[in-house]
Amino acid sequence: MQIGLIGLGKMGGNMAERLRRGGHDVVGYDRNPDAPRDVASLQELVDKLEAPRVVWVMVPSGAPTTETIKDLSEVLSEGDLVVDGGNTRYTDDPIHAEMLGKNGIKFVDCGVSGGVWGLTEGYALMCGGDDDAVAMVKPAFDTLKPEGEYGYVHAGSVGAGHFVKMVHNGIEYGMMQAYGEGYELIKAMDFVKDPEQVFASWKEGTVIRSWLLDLLVDALKKDPGLEGIRGYAQDSGEGRWTIEAAIQKAIPLPVITAALFARFASRQEESPAMKVVAALRNEFGGHAVGKAGTEGDVPVS
Amino acid sequence: MQIGLIGLGKMGGNMAERLRRGGHDVVGYDRNPDAPRDVASLQELVDKLEAPRVVWVMVPSGAPTTETIKDLSEVLSEGDLVVDGGNTRYTDDPIHAEMLGKNGIKFVDCGVSGGVWGLTEGYALMCGGDDDAVAMVKPAFDTLKPEGEYGYVHAGSVGAGHFVKMVHNGIEYGMMQAYGEGYELIKAMDFVKDPEQVFASWKEGTVIRSWLLDLLVDALKKDPGLEGIRGYAQDSGEGRWTIEAAIQKAIPLPVITAALFARFASRQEESPAMKVVAALRNEFGGHAVGKAGTEGDVPVS
Amino acid sequence: MQIGLIGLGKMGGNMAERLRRGGHDVVGYDRNPDAPRDVASLQELVDKLEAPRVVWVMVPSGAPTTETIKDLSEVLSEGDLVVDGGNTRYTDDPIHAEMLGKNGIKFVDCGVSGGVWGLTEGYALMCGGDDDAVAMVKPAFDTLKPEGEYGYVHAGSVGAGHFVKMVHNGIEYGMMQAYGEGYELIKAMDFVKDPEQVFASWKEGTVIRSWLLDLLVDALKKDPGLEGIRGYAQDSGEGRWTIEAAIQKAIPLPVITAALFARFASRQEESPAMKVVAALRNEFGGHAVGKAGTEGDVPVS
Amino acid sequence: MQIGLIGLGKMGGNMAERLRRGGHDVVGYDRNPDAPRDVASLQELVDKLEAPRVVWVMVPSGAPTTETIKDLSEVLSEGDLVVDGGNTRYTDDPIHAEMLGKNGIKFVDCGVSGGVWGLTEGYALMCGGDDDAVAMVKPAFDTLKPEGEYGYVHAGSVGAGHFVKMVHNGIEYGMMQAYGEGYELIKAMDFVKDPEQVFASWKEGTVIRSWLLDLLVDALKKDPGLEGIRGYAQDSGEGRWTIEAAIQKAIPLPVITAALFARFASRQEESPAMKVVAALRNEFGGHAVGKAGTEGDVPVS
Repeated sequence: MQIGLIGLGKMGGNMAERLRRGGHDVVGYDRNPDAPRDVASLQELVDKLEAPRVVWVMVPSGAPTTETIKDLSEVLSEGDLVVDGGNTRYTDDPIHAEMLGKNGIKFVDCGVSGGVWGLTEGYALMCGGDDDAVAMVKPAFDTLKPEGEYGYVHAGSVGAGHFVKMVHNGIEYGMMQAYGEGYELIKAMDFVKDPEQVFASWKEGTVIRSWLLDLLVDALKKDPGLEGIRGYAQDSGEGRWTIEAAIQKAIPLPVITAALFARFASRQEESPAMKVVAALRNEFGGHAVGKAGTEGDVPVS
Repeated sequence: MQIGLIGLGKMGGNMAERLRRGGHDVVGYDRNPDAPRDVASLQELVDKLEAPRVVWVMVPSGAPTTETIKDLSEVLSEGDLVVDGGNTRYTDDPIHAEMLGKNGIKFVDCGVSGGVWGLTEGYALMCGGDDDAVAMVKPAFDTLKPEGEYGYVHAGSVGAGHFVKMVHNGIEYGMMQAYGEGYELIKAMDFVKDPEQVFASWKEGTVIRSWLLDLLVDALKKDPGLEGIRGYAQDSGEGRWTIEAAIQKAIPLPVITAALFARFASRQEESPAMKVVAALRNEFGGHAVGKAGTEGDVPVS
Repeated sequence: MQIGLIGLGKMGGNMAERLRRGGHDVVGYDRNPDAPRDVASLQELVDKLEAPRVVWVMVPSGAPTTETIKDLSEVLSEGDLVVDGGNTRYTDDPIHAEMLGKNGIKFVDCGVSGGVWGLTEGYALMCGGDDDAVAMVKPAFDTLKPEGEYGYVHAGSVGAGHFVKMVHNGIEYGMMQAYGEGYELIKAMDFVKDPEQVFASWKEGTVIRSWLLDLLVDALKKDPGLEGIRGYAQDSGEGRWTIEAAIQKAIPLPVITAALFARFASRQEESPAMKVVAALRNEFGGHAVGKAGTEGDVPVS
Repeated sequence: MQIGLIGLGKMGGNMAERLRRGGHDVVGYDRNPDAPRDVASLQELVDKLEAPRVVWVMVPSGAPTTETIKDLSEVLSEGDLVVDGGNTRYTDDPIHAEMLGKNGIKFVDCGVSGGVWGLTEGYALMCGGDDDAVAMVKPAFDTLKPEGEYGYVHAGSVGAGHFVKMVHNGIEYGMMQAYGEGYELIKAMDFVKDPEQVFASWKEGTVIRSWLLDLLVDALKKDPGLEGIRGYAQDSGEGRWTIEAAIQKAIPLPVITAALFARFASRQEESPAMKVVAALRNEFGGHAVGKAGTEGDVPVS
C-alpha cells in the first residue's frame, strides 16, 4: 500500500525501511531537512499520496504529536486516515480523534514495541480504533509485525492501542527491576563466583527465561560487572501514566510503582526525604548526621 | 552413571525418568511404600550402589531433607557424594555439608527449575560445591539439563547453587506480579475488548515476551477471565529467604518484596492493619466504619 | 466579622458554630432545606452580607464546589471574596480563582484539618492566596484555628493551601498504615499478652507518641481487638492526588503510595493480579489452584 | 532499691543519673576505665550488691550483651535478677534467659525508648518476663518511666518487651519516612513559600501532630532546608528484625519495609539494580547509558 510516514528518527526510519522491504510505497517526511526525507513539507506529502491517504505519525509524544495531527487535520481530506504510532498518552487519543474527525478524517492509535530489533524481527503492534479504519492500514500492520501468529492486536476502540502499549511498558518496568534486584543480590554474595555465568545459564529451562534475560546476558557479556554503566535510569512517561491510570481505577500496582520509584530515586543526588529521617534521628537520638552509627553504646531510640 | 535417587514425588519421579531415558542406572527410594521405588530402605539403596556412590536427595526442604542427609551420613562411606536437589535454604547447606564431611562424604547443593515441563524440556540446574564433587555428578547434570548451551551453572562453593536458585524464584515472584498487575489494569478498562488477545499478541516482537507470558496466554486460553481461579497464592519459602538475604546485606528489593507481600495479603480474609486505619478514620473523622464514605459533605480529615 | 458560609454539613455546621462562639456574624446557607440554614438561596445570602462580602464555601469537592463557585461568581460583586475550605484538588484552585477574578472577586483556598474535634479544639488551617485577600478573612481564621502559636499557615499563592493540606493527608495515610502494620504484627505474636495495653503505654515517653496514637488507644479501649470494625478503608482523593503530584515531579513516595495501595487492596473481594500469579504457578508447577501447597514433595518451581 | 548498672554510655549513663535522682542506690560498671564507674570489675559489682541482686545490662546488642550475660550467669547467685535494657533481638532473649536460668538467675528483657530526652522526661519501658521477676525491678521501672499514667508496660513473657520495642521502632521508621516524603514533595513546589512554616503550623489542630513532628520543626528551625544534613540514614537493626518477624508470620508490612529500603538506598553510591535497568534499556532501545533520554524521536521501547 501507499503510506505517508512523518518522523524519520531511529524508530520511524527503521519502520519506513521495513515497510519498503515489504513492498510498500513509503513517502517519508521529517521536519529536519537532514533526515532522508522524500518530501519537504506536509503539503507535499499530501500531494504525493493518493486519496484515501494513510499517514503514519511517528514523532515524539506530547506537543510535537498534537501539533502534527492538528496540521494534518487541515491538509488532509475526508476519508483519509491518520495513524499515531508514537508513545502518546492514551487520554490524548480521543482528543486527536475528534480533531481529525471534525474534518471527516479517520484515526487509529498504535502502540509499537520492538526497539532497535524491530527492523529485522518485526514490531509488536497494538492498535485502537474502528474496524474500518484499522482495515485501511492493515497491510502496513501485516508487514511491520513479526512473522508468525502473534505480535499484532486490535485492542479496542480509540485509545486502547496506546493504553495496552503503556501497560506493556509498565510490566516491562517491573520485570527489568526484578532482574536488577536479583543481580544486585547475587553480586553481593562472595560465594557466587561468576554472576554473569549464572544469568547466562538461566536462558534455558528456567521459569524466568525471557527476551529481556537474553538481552541482559548480552550486556553482561560485553561488560561483566556493568562497570561502564551508570546506575541511573530515565523514564519515558508510560510508567507514570500506568500508575495514574491505576490510581484512577483504585487498583494497587505495588510492583510497577516500586520499579518507577526506583528510577526516580536513581536520578536523585540525595534524597530530601532522607534528610528528614536523618535530622529526626539526630533530634531524638543524638545520632550523628551523615556519619556512621554510634558504637560501643546502646543506640538511642 | 549409577545414581541413587531419594524422593519419587512429582519432581523426583520425573527426574528419575529423565535420567533413565538418558541411559543412567537409577536406583529410586521413597519413604512411601506406594511410590515406584526400587529399594525399600536407605541401607538397601546403599548396598545396591557401587562405591564411590552418588545419592541425589529430592525431598521437601527443612526437616525431611535434614533428616535424610543425617541418615545418609551414617550409611554412606568416605568418598561417596550426596546431592541435595530440593529447595533447601542456602544457609542450611554448609550445615549439611559438615554433617556429611565429618564422615568424608562429599556434598553438592543443586537448585532445580523447570517444573512439570522438566521431564521433556530439561531442568535448569544451578549447583554449588567443590570442583571434584561437582565432577562426580556431572554426567547426571548433563542429562537432566536442557539440550543446548545453557541451563546449567556451577555457581560457586557449597550453598551457591541453592542461593542462586532462590534468587531465581525471587525474580520469578516479581515478574509474575508484574504481569498480574498489567492484567488487572487492562481488565478494568472497558475500551479494551479482549484482554486475552492482547496478552497473546505480546508473545512476539515485544520487550516483555517470555516463557511466563507464554504460560499465561495458555492459561487465559483455557479460562478467559480466569474465573475458575482464586486470587490467592501460596509461597514456598524462597521468596521470603530472598528478602531475608537482602536485608542482611542492606540491599533494597522493593519489587520482589512487594510481590511477596501481595501474596501474603491475598491469603488474608481481612487485614488487621486496615482495621486500625478504619478505626482511626472513624475516631478523627466520624467516617463510617465498614461502609462507604460520607456523601454530600466535606469529608472530615 | 460578617461571613457567609455555604454548606452546613458535619464540617461546615461545626465551623459555623465555632465562628459564632467567637463572636462572628455567620449567615449560613445549604442547598438542603432541612439544614439549619439562615437563608434559602445564594441571592438571599448575598443580600444579607455587607460589601465587601466574604463567603466561605464548605461543600464536597469536585462538581459541587465548582458549581457553587461559578454561581457565586455571578451573584457576588467586585471586591468580594470567596474562601474554598473544602477538599478541592489544588489544581482546580487557579481555575476557580480565574472564574471569580474575571468579575473582580478575590479567592483564597483553605485546607482544613481537625475533624470532629475541630469545634472544641480548633481547626488547623492552611491557606493560599494573595496577602490582601488572606487579610480580609484573617479574623475568621483566627477564631477557627486552635488557641496557641500554631495551627495556621498562609502557605503560599493560590492553590498552596489545598496543596499542603493534601500532603498533610498523604503523611496521615503513611502514619496510619505504620501503626496498623505494627498492630497487626503484635497481634500475631502469642507471647504479647495485651496489645491494647502496649499501645496505651506508648502514649508517653516514646518516639512514636502522637495524636493518632491517642485516638488509636481510645478505639482499642472501646473495642479491644477491633472486632467490630471491618478491615476496609476508603480514601477521599487526597492520597491519590499526592501521588500524582509526586509522579509529576519524579519524586519517589514509597511509603505514602504503599499506604494508599493497602486501602485499594482492602476494598477488593479478590485480586485479579493474584489470579494471574495463581494461574502461572499452576501452569509451571502444577500447584493446586486455590488450595494449600503441595506436601511431601519438593515444590515445583 | 539497690541496682547494678552495666554500661555507662549515653543511654546507660543517663539512666543511672535518673535512677539516682529518684533515690535509688546505683552501682555503675563499664568495661571502659574512663567511664564514671563505681566498680572496676563484674566481681566487684556483685560484691557491692546485697542479695537478691538486680543487675541492669545496658550495653550494645549482639555479642557484647551475650558475653555480659554469660559472665553474669557465672558471678551472680540463685535468686538474683538480670534486666537486659539494650536493643537485643527478641529471639535472643529466651537464649539469655536459659543461660541464666540454669543457675537459678531470673531474667527480664526491657525495651527502652526516649532517647536523649529520657533523662528529664522519663523513658518509655516495655518489659517481658515472669511476674515475680518483673516485680523485683518494678521500683526502678517506676523511676525511669515518665510521670503520668503511661510509658510502662509489662508486655508479656520473656522476649515480649524487646519484641514490642522492636515493633515500636518499625512504626517509627514508617512515620519518619512519611514526614520525609511529605517534606520532599512540598519542597519541590515553588508556590509554597516557606515549607518550614507549614510544618510548624501542623503542630496544632492537625491529624498528624506528634512528638516526631515537634522534633522536625525544631530541626527545621535550626537549619531551614536541612542544608547541613546529608540525606543518608543508618538503621540499628530493629527495622530489619521487624520485617523478618513479619515474613515469618506471613504478614505484609509494605510501609515499614519501604521505609527500611529507603534507608538502604540512601547509603548506596549507586544502585547495581539500576545498572541492569540502564543496560537493558540500552540493549533494546539504544537508550543512552548514563545520559538523558533521546530527544526529537519516539523513544524506543
